[in-house]
Amino acid sequence: MTRIVMDVDTGIDDTLALAYVLAAVRAGECELAGVVGTYGNVLASTAMANNRAVLRLFDAAVPGGTSGVPTPRGCVCPSWADGFAVDEGCARFHGDNGLGNVDPTRYGDRPSDGGTAGLVGPNDESGSDDAPTITVADRMRAASRPAVLSLGGERHDLPVRLADGDGDDAAQPFGGQTRAETMNLAASDASYANRPSQWRADCPEASRPDGLPAGVRLIIDEVRAHGRDVTVLATGPLTDVDAALAAAPDIAERMRLVMMGGALTQEGNCYDLICETNIFQDPEAANRVFRSGADVTMIGLDVTHQCLLTRADAESWRAADGPREDGDRPGAGAFLADMARFYIGANEASDPLFLAGSPLHDPLAAAVALDPALVTCFDVNMMTETSTGNGHGFRGRTIGDPTRLRDPRKTAHVALNVDAARAAASIRDRIGELCANNA
Amino acid sequence: MTRIVMDVDTGIDDTLALAYVLAAVRAGECELAGVVGTYGNVLASTAMANNRAVLRLFDAAVPGGTSGVPTPRGCVCPSWADGFAVDEGCARFHGDNGLGNVDPTRYGDRPSDGGTAGLVGPNDESGSDDAPTITVADRMRAASRPAVLSLGGERHDLPVRLADGDGDDAAQPFGGQTRAETMNLAASDASYANRPSQWRADCPEASRPDGLPAGVRLIIDEVRAHGRDVTVLATGPLTDVDAALAAAPDIAERMRLVMMGGALTQEGNCYDLICETNIFQDPEAANRVFRSGADVTMIGLDVTHQCLLTRADAESWRAADGPREDGDRPGAGAFLADMARFYIGANEASDPLFLAGSPLHDPLAAAVALDPALVTCFDVNMMTETSTGNGHGFRGRTIGDPTRLRDPRKTAHVALNVDAARAAASIRDRIGELCANNA
Repeated sequence: MTRIVMDVDTGIDDTLALAYVLAAVRAGECELAGVVGTYGNVLASTAMANNRAVLRLFDAAVPGGTSGVPTPRGCVCPSWADGFAVDEGCARFHGDNGLGNVDPTRYGDRPSDGGTAGLVGPNDESGSDDAPTITVADRMRAASRPAVLSLGGERHDLPVRLADGDGDDAAQPFGGQTRAETMNLAASDASYANRPSQWRADCPEASRPDGLPAGVRLIIDEVRAHGRDVTVLATGPLTDVDAALAAAPDIAERMRLVMMGGALTQEGNCYDLICETNIFQDPEAANRVFRSGADVTMIGLDVTHQCLLTRADAESWRAADGPREDGDRPGAGAFLADMARFYIGANEASDPLFLAGSPLHDPLAAAVALDPALVTCFDVNMMTETSTGNGHGFRGRTIGDPTRLRDPRKTAHVALNVDAARAAASIRDRIGELCANNA
Repeated sequence: MTRIVMDVDTGIDDTLALAYVLAAVRAGECELAGVVGTYGNVLASTAMANNRAVLRLFDAAVPGGTSGVPTPRGCVCPSWADGFAVDEGCARFHGDNGLGNVDPTRYGDRPSDGGTAGLVGPNDESGSDDAPTITVADRMRAASRPAVLSLGGERHDLPVRLADGDGDDAAQPFGGQTRAETMNLAASDASYANRPSQWRADCPEASRPDGLPAGVRLIIDEVRAHGRDVTVLATGPLTDVDAALAAAPDIAERMRLVMMGGALTQEGNCYDLICETNIFQDPEAANRVFRSGADVTMIGLDVTHQCLLTRADAESWRAADGPREDGDRPGAGAFLADMARFYIGANEASDPLFLAGSPLHDPLAAAVALDPALVTCFDVNMMTETSTGNGHGFRGRTIGDPTRLRDPRKTAHVALNVDAARAAASIRDRIGELCANNA
């Protein structure tokens, strides 16, 4: 039986990946050792709350329920930054709450379980480990030293010690800008200054000896206990996996990672058409993971852009809820369908290629974690470029590592071909099964 | 028996590719229908002269001799430019004459055949079709309208109508620059203004109805006559192949192309580490060829960086010449060995990875044209990006075409794995055989 620990930035397609894994748990094919919520499509705290809400919705579908599944938080920002805010692009695809602006507490048969509090069981403890959220502007006003913000992967150096405009600014680190100038810099960009953000220094773990969020600790503990018998399934930035490897280098050679991210033979999905979003968030982390010796299966845009979700697929989940009486709350299938409708609309608006369907990025990674035969992989040693320019390539590009090209040992397996029809049908049908049995 | 028409920018490794094909001709495995000389590592006229010199050197190794092999010239510049000059980088790897500054007329047993005149037979005619060479600075002085120069793939817009510095320059197309300023622009960069260059408008074909160089005509005629029974083996920019497809769209679906160029899963070899040199020269041409429907086998840096030539390999060719008496001219194997020594030195100096050996780019493409089993290919529909920036990717990058990702028909076969030991040994040994039997 496959044991899986998920690391997700939940996210619409992360939610579908989680539902897919729960369907496998239900079928007795898989054991879910934990679901770590990390930053990316949403703030890490939002991811954690979403994970809990989704597990709660499907509590009845899984033997023994879902309340025993640990749902700790991972890192709140990339390894190269001090804090993180979601960029507008992500919000466009996933909604402000990561779930297509659909409220999960309005669905499901047990309204008394609704709300955003943590689950009972192991999650109570990790719930107490949450990180505070403040706007970028508030952080700028409050902070006493320079700080680096990742706005969805883009670096912003925040001017936190401001000259006061009286001309006596030689000692200021921001070289003579007046307070008015620097604040305008931020205030003029409302999409940036007013965004909610989370900061590493504000996290409870910042004052603990190991400095590790509970989610990173969980990954370390799982790999130490189970080696390659547990699959780390990461569908967001690789910051948590990298942090686990940094804190526990002994797990590298024992780790089996299936990740959604990167693009090797297709264009990226950032504006630059070179980088894939998850990798763009933390290229340094991805690079270290690729070079760590861990066994990495990369499910990138090469295959996820072939594996599409149609409106009819999504509606099949609503139907799977079964007939509802007047006054009944809509079921979990309706939740997934409403959420998917948002995602499909956003994808259709973004690219005419997605009029045929929306990419099943994260669910495909989940499906491959359980059934590797869905894809054909190219074995290659990978890296991520971390700078842009002559001699550097392009920051965030996933590409073969020239220094290990002729090394007969290949640590990465990049999926290049996929049985897209079978994968998409499996994702649709298994999630449908889960919904149909959620009572 | 494989029929091959080569299109080469000769070039040290192009020369080795030609020698490899001649070895196959000698062995009765292959018929060489022609060798087109195009711009790239050298000017097109230099490539043509080099092709003739190499064929002459190996005249005795091939049954019936090599003088009957047509060696026409192809295009002198990329499709997007008016003229072309070689950049310093290419000269560093291939020497100013493309043959590592080694003079082929000093080798071989038949000094009377030396010199740079065309071969007898079909080549006399194409020899008369050569294009004049002038320096970039001369062109600037002579031209009467703006012109676009490709300096090894880099665009330079030449100011050809110069203000005369008397202040009366309102009607000039270069907005008020004085003659002194514009000339300084060029003169300050000696590596650019003093370089020899060739220009499309100066070519004899410019005044012919079809406007096609004889080399492009040869490609059209060969594919029309033989379809996929002839392999077009292109080891330089794809300008000639593109020109053939443009002039004769009927050949697209019948063309089998094996090309050295591009990089899909490894970094590029231009300074940007994204583009491969051949593709960088003419991204538009490469893009049109990839999208034409022609059957393309891409031998890119993915595999050529695995297939290396050592100093010992090269010296084995000198040894293959057999014992020489005092006063004997050195043989063709010595020519190849001396030339390869230059190439190996340049590669060693460029990248410590190449201390293990120098990439056998073009010979590997030749070897695959004759023995496709040397590589494992990924079937994918390819494109070349032609602009840089958000929404565009990176000009010159070879990447999967998203619009044809889910098309079950794949027109390109990108070599990702190679039996490097067998390929390198085959290249070394077959070329050695050719040298040993060149009398």
